[in-house]
Amino acid sequence: MSLSEFDVISRFFSRCGVPRSDVALGVGDDGAVLECPPGAQLIAAIDSLVEAVHFPKGSPARSIGHRALAVNLSDLAAMGAQPAWALLALALPAAEETWLGEFSAGLDALAREHGVALVGGDTTGGSLCVTVQVLGFVPRGSALTRSGGRPGDVVFVSGTPGDSAAGLLLEQSQLTVDDPAQAQWLLDRFRYPTPRVSLGLALRGLASACIDVSDGLLGDCGRLAHASGCGVQLDYATIPLSPALRAAVGEERGRRLALTGGEDYELCFTVPESRLAQFLEAVPAAEFGWTRIGALSAAPGAAVQRGGAVMEISARGFDHFSAK
Amino acid sequence: MSLSEFDVISRFFSRCGVPRSDVALGVGDDGAVLECPPGAQLIAAIDSLVEAVHFPKGSPARSIGHRALAVNLSDLAAMGAQPAWALLALALPAAEETWLGEFSAGLDALAREHGVALVGGDTTGGSLCVTVQVLGFVPRGSALTRSGGRPGDVVFVSGTPGDSAAGLLLEQSQLTVDDPAQAQWLLDRFRYPTPRVSLGLALRGLASACIDVSDGLLGDCGRLAHASGCGVQLDYATIPLSPALRAAVGEERGRRLALTGGEDYELCFTVPESRLAQFLEAVPAAEFGWTRIGALSAAPGAAVQRGGAVMEISARGFDHFSAK
Repeated sequence: MSLSEFDVISRFFSRCGVPRSDVALGVGDDGAVLECPPGAQLIAAIDSLVEAVHFPKGSPARSIGHRALAVNLSDLAAMGAQPAWALLALALPAAEETWLGEFSAGLDALAREHGVALVGGDTTGGSLCVTVQVLGFVPRGSALTRSGGRPGDVVFVSGTPGDSAAGLLLEQSQLTVDDPAQAQWLLDRFRYPTPRVSLGLALRGLASACIDVSDGLLGDCGRLAHASGCGVQLDYATIPLSPALRAAVGEERGRRLALTGGEDYELCFTVPESRLAQFLEAVPAAEFGWTRIGALSAAPGAAVQRGGAVMEISARGFDHFSAK
Repeated sequence: MSLSEFDVISRFFSRCGVPRSDVALGVGDDGAVLECPPGAQLIAAIDSLVEAVHFPKGSPARSIGHRALAVNLSDLAAMGAQPAWALLALALPAAEETWLGEFSAGLDALAREHGVALVGGDTTGGSLCVTVQVLGFVPRGSALTRSGGRPGDVVFVSGTPGDSAAGLLLEQSQLTVDDPAQAQWLLDRFRYPTPRVSLGLALRGLASACIDVSDGLLGDCGRLAHASGCGVQLDYATIPLSPALRAAVGEERGRRLALTGGEDYELCFTVPESRLAQFLEAVPAAEFGWTRIGALSAAPGAAVQRGGAVMEISARGFDHFSAK
């Protein structure tokens, strides 16, 4: 059965996410009409997922819907923003009901979890390309940025980076893991990343800088340091590894995946020594799942200390346009 | 020479459009930080252009940059909004300097014309797909919508629809026009459509409903009527034709292109009889270039009156997913 563009929007996207009282007019007109809260600054981000670039051909539609919103919520999290609204631009080769149902269910579930309303969109034919644009808020002057770090600030990362990279290797049959539960867990870390929204909110007023880890921890951490006019030194032994990743690929390869893999959507952030005690009390590791991994330095560059030596790892991360 | 994703952003997009004092933080962090004006509602729209769907392969990059923003500004115009900010998600097969220079020049020129700042974006590999998201403002409660029309309201259209459809036929070598100046003019109506932003602003408080004409005048006019709980009757003889279109394809085919072609990015709007005098004075045709083409009716459906008869024309407009 062939669905028209209007069927697609009304059946799958007109009631996606939560209803919000600050949406005066949502999906269905030329634009959405939205109420910004007084005293707040608007935070806006946009990110695309392209088939065969950001996910393998044939990935589950539910995962694509989840990830398209998750990668954007992760950007809001890195700014310390409270998510509010999203817009979706969807190019797809054919309007297939099962696929659209699964895709919108993935998007809808994550939107509901974070109180987000889908307020507008565009659907068109084309190669599968999903662009989501998110809008959120911070109290004026309280946005986290990449550029506020200073030498000596302590560097933290949330979660266990590298799991997503291992999940992608599993998805592409480039890795085998004996334990099916661990394999599924790693796969799900790739397919259903968790945007660290509540951590981002908790870090307002405490973190000096923050970035979301999408292109590899070392590269993104280096970007934060560079934007802050610093360098960064990470301590190899402290890079957190999940039990599943350690069991699947061992400690050595696991740490390399953690440092240079991509698509983690964790937060890497810095806290000045002067605010450490306050941070430890307000943002406990037991609740927010972060690990201390290093410090910003006055000398530029991103380095990883192992024992007494400095490891050399390509810090480039994933770059879409560089020659392989 | 191969450009990295970071080179692409810093060289071509970090200073696109005008600087604005309401942009606290623009391109280069995880999100933009923006100041919403008090007393205003935010208007948000998103639209994609996909190669071989919305423009032929090999179209000039400058035109693609212009159109990607123009189709979005047209959505803001239809809401009566003052444009402020834009975000760009660009998927492209290769980072080619000449192409990027032309693309960003097209986007930049139109952004400057409308006082828009490019505040964020995402670039990735993939088939050429350009998604722009725009944000603008209306004084609270003054947004134009599709749903405010009532039976008897007079229907107007801006500009001369059909020119863009003829321009696309020229671009695809499916039409030949003897006069090179007229051919170029039609081609430019496709390549460089004019978003009717100042008309949209002038219509606030006067128009009862408004829609932008992107999928064909008759279809979009029917959509406005449907959203308003009405039908619409258009008068065939009044559908405006440009001299170039008339010369190129004759009156009969010209009117059919005007009614069912697409990609016009004109505004179709309705004005109640009670506000007609005020409208004629405040929004003169000589300045804003509109034509009266019909009226909303109590009976549903979209019809075109010609002499005493009702013409049958497929009112579906362009639908990306229906079987041909």
